[in-house]
Amino acid sequence: MSKVVCFGEIMLRLAPAGYLRFEQAGSLEAVYGGGEANVCVSLANFGLDAALVTKVPDNPIGQSAINEMRRYGVDTRYMIRGGERLGVYFLEKGASQRPSKVVYDRKYSAVSQAQRQDFNWPEIFDGADWFHFTGITPALGDNVAEAVLDACKAAREAGVTVSCDLNFRKNLWTSEKAGQVMSRFMPYVDVCIANEEDAEKVFGIKAAETDITGGKLSHEGYKQVAKQLSDRFGCGAVAITLRESISASDNNWAAMLYKDGNYHFSRKYPIHIIDRVGGGDSFGGGLIFGLLSDYSAQDALEFAVAASCLKHTIEGDHNHVSVGEVRTLMGGDGSGRVQR
Amino acid sequence: MSKVVCFGEIMLRLAPAGYLRFEQAGSLEAVYGGGEANVCVSLANFGLDAALVTKVPDNPIGQSAINEMRRYGVDTRYMIRGGERLGVYFLEKGASQRPSKVVYDRKYSAVSQAQRQDFNWPEIFDGADWFHFTGITPALGDNVAEAVLDACKAAREAGVTVSCDLNFRKNLWTSEKAGQVMSRFMPYVDVCIANEEDAEKVFGIKAAETDITGGKLSHEGYKQVAKQLSDRFGCGAVAITLRESISASDNNWAAMLYKDGNYHFSRKYPIHIIDRVGGGDSFGGGLIFGLLSDYSAQDALEFAVAASCLKHTIEGDHNHVSVGEVRTLMGGDGSGRVQR
Amino acid sequence: MSKVVCFGEIMLRLAPAGYLRFEQAGSLEAVYGGGEANVCVSLANFGLDAALVTKVPDNPIGQSAINEMRRYGVDTRYMIRGGERLGVYFLEKGASQRPSKVVYDRKYSAVSQAQRQDFNWPEIFDGADWFHFTGITPALGDNVAEAVLDACKAAREAGVTVSCDLNFRKNLWTSEKAGQVMSRFMPYVDVCIANEEDAEKVFGIKAAETDITGGKLSHEGYKQVAKQLSDRFGCGAVAITLRESISASDNNWAAMLYKDGNYHFSRKYPIHIIDRVGGGDSFGGGLIFGLLSDYSAQDALEFAVAASCLKHTIEGDHNHVSVGEVRTLMGGDGSGRVQR
Amino acid sequence: MSKVVCFGEIMLRLAPAGYLRFEQAGSLEAVYGGGEANVCVSLANFGLDAALVTKVPDNPIGQSAINEMRRYGVDTRYMIRGGERLGVYFLEKGASQRPSKVVYDRKYSAVSQAQRQDFNWPEIFDGADWFHFTGITPALGDNVAEAVLDACKAAREAGVTVSCDLNFRKNLWTSEKAGQVMSRFMPYVDVCIANEEDAEKVFGIKAAETDITGGKLSHEGYKQVAKQLSDRFGCGAVAITLRESISASDNNWAAMLYKDGNYHFSRKYPIHIIDRVGGGDSFGGGLIFGLLSDYSAQDALEFAVAASCLKHTIEGDHNHVSVGEVRTLMGGDGSGRVQR
Amino acid sequence: MSKVVCFGEIMLRLAPAGYLRFEQAGSLEAVYGGGEANVCVSLANFGLDAALVTKVPDNPIGQSAINEMRRYGVDTRYMIRGGERLGVYFLEKGASQRPSKVVYDRKYSAVSQAQRQDFNWPEIFDGADWFHFTGITPALGDNVAEAVLDACKAAREAGVTVSCDLNFRKNLWTSEKAGQVMSRFMPYVDVCIANEEDAEKVFGIKAAETDITGGKLSHEGYKQVAKQLSDRFGCGAVAITLRESISASDNNWAAMLYKDGNYHFSRKYPIHIIDRVGGGDSFGGGLIFGLLSDYSAQDALEFAVAASCLKHTIEGDHNHVSVGEVRTLMGGDGSGRVQR
Amino acid sequence: MSKVVCFGEIMLRLAPAGYLRFEQAGSLEAVYGGGEANVCVSLANFGLDAALVTKVPDNPIGQSAINEMRRYGVDTRYMIRGGERLGVYFLEKGASQRPSKVVYDRKYSAVSQAQRQDFNWPEIFDGADWFHFTGITPALGDNVAEAVLDACKAAREAGVTVSCDLNFRKNLWTSEKAGQVMSRFMPYVDVCIANEEDAEKVFGIKAAETDITGGKLSHEGYKQVAKQLSDRFGCGAVAITLRESISASDNNWAAMLYKDGNYHFSRKYPIHIIDRVGGGDSFGGGLIFGLLSDYSAQDALEFAVAASCLKHTIEGDHNHVSVGEVRTLMGGDGSGRVQR
Repeated sequence: MSKVVCFGEIMLRLAPAGYLRFEQAGSLEAVYGGGEANVCVSLANFGLDAALVTKVPDNPIGQSAINEMRRYGVDTRYMIRGGERLGVYFLEKGASQRPSKVVYDRKYSAVSQAQRQDFNWPEIFDGADWFHFTGITPALGDNVAEAVLDACKAAREAGVTVSCDLNFRKNLWTSEKAGQVMSRFMPYVDVCIANEEDAEKVFGIKAAETDITGGKLSHEGYKQVAKQLSDRFGCGAVAITLRESISASDNNWAAMLYKDGNYHFSRKYPIHIIDRVGGGDSFGGGLIFGLLSDYSAQDALEFAVAASCLKHTIEGDHNHVSVGEVRTLMGGDGSGRVQR
Repeated sequence: MSKVVCFGEIMLRLAPAGYLRFEQAGSLEAVYGGGEANVCVSLANFGLDAALVTKVPDNPIGQSAINEMRRYGVDTRYMIRGGERLGVYFLEKGASQRPSKVVYDRKYSAVSQAQRQDFNWPEIFDGADWFHFTGITPALGDNVAEAVLDACKAAREAGVTVSCDLNFRKNLWTSEKAGQVMSRFMPYVDVCIANEEDAEKVFGIKAAETDITGGKLSHEGYKQVAKQLSDRFGCGAVAITLRESISASDNNWAAMLYKDGNYHFSRKYPIHIIDRVGGGDSFGGGLIFGLLSDYSAQDALEFAVAASCLKHTIEGDHNHVSVGEVRTLMGGDGSGRVQR
Repeated sequence: MSKVVCFGEIMLRLAPAGYLRFEQAGSLEAVYGGGEANVCVSLANFGLDAALVTKVPDNPIGQSAINEMRRYGVDTRYMIRGGERLGVYFLEKGASQRPSKVVYDRKYSAVSQAQRQDFNWPEIFDGADWFHFTGITPALGDNVAEAVLDACKAAREAGVTVSCDLNFRKNLWTSEKAGQVMSRFMPYVDVCIANEEDAEKVFGIKAAETDITGGKLSHEGYKQVAKQLSDRFGCGAVAITLRESISASDNNWAAMLYKDGNYHFSRKYPIHIIDRVGGGDSFGGGLIFGLLSDYSAQDALEFAVAASCLKHTIEGDHNHVSVGEVRTLMGGDGSGRVQR
Repeated sequence: MSKVVCFGEIMLRLAPAGYLRFEQAGSLEAVYGGGEANVCVSLANFGLDAALVTKVPDNPIGQSAINEMRRYGVDTRYMIRGGERLGVYFLEKGASQRPSKVVYDRKYSAVSQAQRQDFNWPEIFDGADWFHFTGITPALGDNVAEAVLDACKAAREAGVTVSCDLNFRKNLWTSEKAGQVMSRFMPYVDVCIANEEDAEKVFGIKAAETDITGGKLSHEGYKQVAKQLSDRFGCGAVAITLRESISASDNNWAAMLYKDGNYHFSRKYPIHIIDRVGGGDSFGGGLIFGLLSDYSAQDALEFAVAASCLKHTIEGDHNHVSVGEVRTLMGGDGSGRVQR
Repeated sequence: MSKVVCFGEIMLRLAPAGYLRFEQAGSLEAVYGGGEANVCVSLANFGLDAALVTKVPDNPIGQSAINEMRRYGVDTRYMIRGGERLGVYFLEKGASQRPSKVVYDRKYSAVSQAQRQDFNWPEIFDGADWFHFTGITPALGDNVAEAVLDACKAAREAGVTVSCDLNFRKNLWTSEKAGQVMSRFMPYVDVCIANEEDAEKVFGIKAAETDITGGKLSHEGYKQVAKQLSDRFGCGAVAITLRESISASDNNWAAMLYKDGNYHFSRKYPIHIIDRVGGGDSFGGGLIFGLLSDYSAQDALEFAVAASCLKHTIEGDHNHVSVGEVRTLMGGDGSGRVQR
Repeated sequence: MSKVVCFGEIMLRLAPAGYLRFEQAGSLEAVYGGGEANVCVSLANFGLDAALVTKVPDNPIGQSAINEMRRYGVDTRYMIRGGERLGVYFLEKGASQRPSKVVYDRKYSAVSQAQRQDFNWPEIFDGADWFHFTGITPALGDNVAEAVLDACKAAREAGVTVSCDLNFRKNLWTSEKAGQVMSRFMPYVDVCIANEEDAEKVFGIKAAETDITGGKLSHEGYKQVAKQLSDRFGCGAVAITLRESISASDNNWAAMLYKDGNYHFSRKYPIHIIDRVGGGDSFGGGLIFGLLSDYSAQDALEFAVAASCLKHTIEGDHNHVSVGEVRTLMGGDGSGRVQR
């Protein structure tokens, strides 16, 4: 069983029920998620051994974050305890023309205050096959960025494959700072994942003729972006998710993978959305699974896209689907007929 | 007021709220349903006298099943008490490309252990106009199949019209067994109802050129199926529901009726689904109502399709609609404007 | 900050959760709304000073109505206390082909029994810029109609702009009575708002070639209606909302504004509906805001339509959106991308 | 199986969840109850044939009231349809020193507007053994009081035993009016039920040395009250419930029965209260059952008190307990040990 | 109408439903409270003009805090917007021997980062009669303590009465620091409120012979404490709440008031607790109301204790009771009989 | 870290919210528990390594049972998959004089159909310190009883301490059968746990002068019982829980321990009950922890009683308390003061 290590923040997600706006809510649904935590749950659901490296406060809220990871089979031994608080994000689900809205309250979180010495990477990577992180982790602070760099080096040393989802967050840092910091990690990255905006926001690499709010995506443009990313930093594989936002309720979803010099484009899924948060993370989880399972590049991509298509139909940050369910969809059955 | 008797299992249905997956649910919504129970509720809502014949355990769970039938006006005097347990089914509602999922826990249920002698059919059919059952009932066990045969014979004796919804359930029996057993009842069946798969799965009668997962349905093929069913078993009427599954969220819904040598095709409704379970049963209920009300064949069919279209917009197994509501839709108003 | 005064009923709205039918509901969600109250909340959310004039019983239910208005920043000093009961309306949310259903229980409400002397209009209009009412208010009773007339006259006296949403309610009065009564107010009305049916039902002014249940709307027809309304009663501006009901789940939504002799048509929004009630009121609120903000006629119209498009995605009667959110949509971004 | 007929109002009861105050509630739990409806449910739960005579509006709210009665096995054939509205009462549950609070909105209800001719008493009493009503029913209006008198006379004619729970409601009428009207029915009443205040409020018959708010009850005083009631009106049996209110959370509960010249006092139960509403009605239901079952006077009283003790532990207006459960408590087992 | 100004933090309170522990909760009930906010709501419910001075972030969470204050009639014009986050506290409700548990996540909150210049005290105190703050406010940071001192001086200048609830919080500062800082405000304080521990923790003033966990309270000891507080700082009135914790479910509650050299002790209430949080604040609110209403010292004390007794029966931080309800209890009726 | 192995059934527990009766419930709260599973969660919460040995069906319901164990830190590697169904039990929470009610639907469960060969005991006990089971496990079937015997022998072989909670269930077997079967395990049992009825029901060992429904417990009698159990089967330690049921809402709770020839009686706790189910299991968990931690006999007993006292205040089957929380109560602080 392959072992994957992810490093990043896990937050308490608080969301009004259904489509209520924040100002209408008298209670908030509570789950725990974050980019890397979401990838861990995806992988645990696929049957891999996934470990989350993070720091949570030594109080019942931090314990609940650990419990949610345990519940879904994630290895929590590297979720160290300490620091002042668990980051929180408030999520309001959008519909139709009204966008979903995220209010972050993650500053001063335990992991953002963590120190390099908190993590013993050689021990963590013992027996590991893959290391995954996103651009959010180093954006939490310079101290965390140092820890990411330590991890990258230790991973390289241990012969562990490294993937990075660029995941640019404008609330956490500027494009300039992001570009500067992320450039230090890229030489260690084997698989780079990005959405339609990240490459430009982080590295100024732009898809030609793309109008994101308009929802039109140019295949040619993305091929250029992927190739540039690969060429500049030497990653063997670059994956880009292609989201067409028709509305908050309906999206088209596809992706491309540039690997070993070849371009692969996936099927495109028209999705009626239940919960869109974590969609990108579930793509990452699917791709890591596909590549670790020695699927062909096209199959790995199709698996990742089908997996993340299903995530959009599931409440919460996590992708609770099995390999069998993903393969059924990937095999062409998206008819949604009742399974008895 | 016409009296309809239905014989079959009523189960406790347990479903996570909204679109949660089983593994996420901390509570389960509880209603009580089953193919024949659902038909009873439809008919009671249409103002007919509908009686459910079944067996439920003599405990508060069985009592709750009785109460739910009473609540909606079903005659419960033939819901006898005894046996060990009420069958349970767990339902997870799908969305978009993720299918709904049913986990059955119905084995050893009270009705599946019932004996022929439990039911005094001549008494039950006293004053009755119609008898309905589905292929699920005999699939519960040989003992139950015997009781169904008793009922068919008694119905014939009493001059009661008999309808059967083939409703093949692969978890309960094989196609071979189903074909064998169902063939014994068919000579008594006046109105046979089937969905797009049943005729093939039970009797090997196949619609030509039909690709169900692809969602394409051939009118011509279904005409052949209906005619074959009618010819082979001598049923005066054969109705086939035509579902095109675009996704778990969107279906097209129509049906055909072969009656007195004529083929009738209904309008087709594009449905945005709230709860798809019981859709077929609500068609059966609508058809029985239409035929008992001496509607024309086309009108009976349109009533049945409109009724079951509406069912897809209603939570739970049951179709809570009035004759007036169905007729409004049947009359062409599906615009969904607020009724004040 | 502009001050707007609205006069009308506020009711307790009781609705089953989600898509449950009345007969299935074991609890009812409780909010407080009504045509003019909804306009007030819209305007308060846009930052204006909005005051609701009404009467509520001096009991905890009436107090809760006041509290909900206060919660969203409405000026409640003219919500006088007295009378027997708060009007109630029961709302069942429709889906797909099943329409939403409203059961009114508003008779004998406090405001419907209010007397002319209950309202000191000159004091109420002190410092006010705008007065708004709907055709529902005078329909509550002759006494209330008298109060409306008092208000119209006082508004004219005070140099306050007057707007009226015709809002015909067939449960409250006949077309004949409505026409008779409304005609008395129209000379005071500067801005008249109507939906696709109102002009005909109240004044017999009909849009040519319009088939509402079929959902087809003729631009030319509506231009005629607006012009006739303006010509007959001398209102400077006439706005008509244009709803195409595809189903209870999906509507197209647009509007036209006839002002200063010019016809303006808005963009049309295809909406996946969360809660359609209050859609028209939110248009009124948006239009008042736009006109008070000295937007161009086209911009005021687009603001009103975008605002009310967003209302359809929000639970409850009220439109909880900010000016910024409306302007983003009005500016063309309806892609629903997550706002972080 | 004995048949009992009850005549009275059924209302929609709306209550905030748990111990929320009205002003805090965003949803309201909805059940349907009323003095006589509650007695019907008690009796149906005890296995008797109980019919509720009332009038409800012909809309989904009225239908839901019918459905709730059907659900618990009450005979609803005499719940006629018509009138404008179903009465509503809002209930806020108290705790400790904070009392429960009821806000009535029952005026103009369907049954309060019903006419004498609406009820065909000879037909209704066909096969009946018992007729029960409370002082609330005639308080709804003179027209309803006439219908009660008709019922009393018809009951007498049909040899049906009559019971009346005085149940004085100060919001509905004055003591003077109550005394006047109730005196007309009393000659027909065989069994009179009252709580610690009713006899005084309705007929000016006062228990000596009783301080209700202080919670002290004098046995001697109640014996006098019962005897006076019996002597003045000739009722064969008079029952008085004895409640000691320690707080909204804790009450002591007992009762006395004066029958055939003998005084019987029950055990006293210290109750930790879940829902106190309907407590008196459940006593009435228990007493009717006991007397109809030919229990001894002491046993009938003990049954009634044990039944109503259990009611205080059950949510909603109705007493959902079986004869077996009541007899277990009556037999002395109030230890609350888990029943497996 | 008297005007009261309160200065302090308002937080988002998140609590599992019922008695669930944090680790079991899938959703959290959300209300907004804090010592001074709670006093404001009490006073607004009593009909006074109460204004909260604080700072909340300019996001929907901060807006929701404002909305909740508006909902209950608090003047929110001095709730300035800015800063990073709203403080959060997590509350787990205890029962019987299991204590309630509070996890604070309030560091870095908007108000804790506020600057002296943020508040224009002379303007705020214009027309004010009373200023109230608690020991929590200065404990938020030295900057906030400076603002409190400014407020005290401005209040003195404006002839506004000042009250302070010592409210020691060990998580925010040490006893030493608290004593030092609070001593600077005390010369301005007219009415000092404390619970059984505060005086000792803040100023080292100890009640003789008191064992708090044992729940025994000595009247004599508290008289000494009150006198010492009064003597040392010159406050005209000192109130001390006397809580006997029998368990998390049951407390006895009383208080004493030392005013003008006289000692007053209130009635003692045995309380079955619904929500104990905000109990002390509701005492403060009651006392301020009583003193502002020119009640006698004994009456003001009894009002405060009765008001806070009722708070223990109400969910959330706030005390939603009217003057009438408090006076009924104060008058001796704690029997909890249903109010119809 | 000590390792404890438990062998038994885990069931889906379905309970109406709050105090609703089964017949009133429209949804059921779902948790997963069972005697041994509950002990596992207790021990995991105390920081031990606890493993549950059982069998669950290979479906989402079985998976959810595994997930709940994982969530709370139980080692699930020996929860093997297979069989037809997960046992279910329905729980209705009682209050005051109304007892809680359990309806079992556990027949044919996966573990009840398990075979001896399903469990490799030597491997399971590798590194283990303690083995625990209850009398429920062998009562599931002879096959399971065989597996229990295998486990006992393997435990003895591996030098693992064995504890058994007699836990007689009259629905599963007769006293006679129980005595016969349990006698085979007793020679391997080091620590025997029983409640006030078990010893008599299983082995005919009766406490003198004990009246359980009356709630009176004789210390002397229990000393005799413990000694007889110890003498007959040679267990070194016998613990008996002493429950006095005042009502379903209030119980007194204590226990005794006979160890090394000495009798120890614990403090007695008066408990206001939140959820009583799992109370005995939490005692077992506490006792195992205390004995494994080398507490003195008295301390181990006090720990076990304090732990299980706290369980009664927690929803669900499991005892979610930490060692620190138990020790605080054990140390005498049951005052329930808010922990901040």
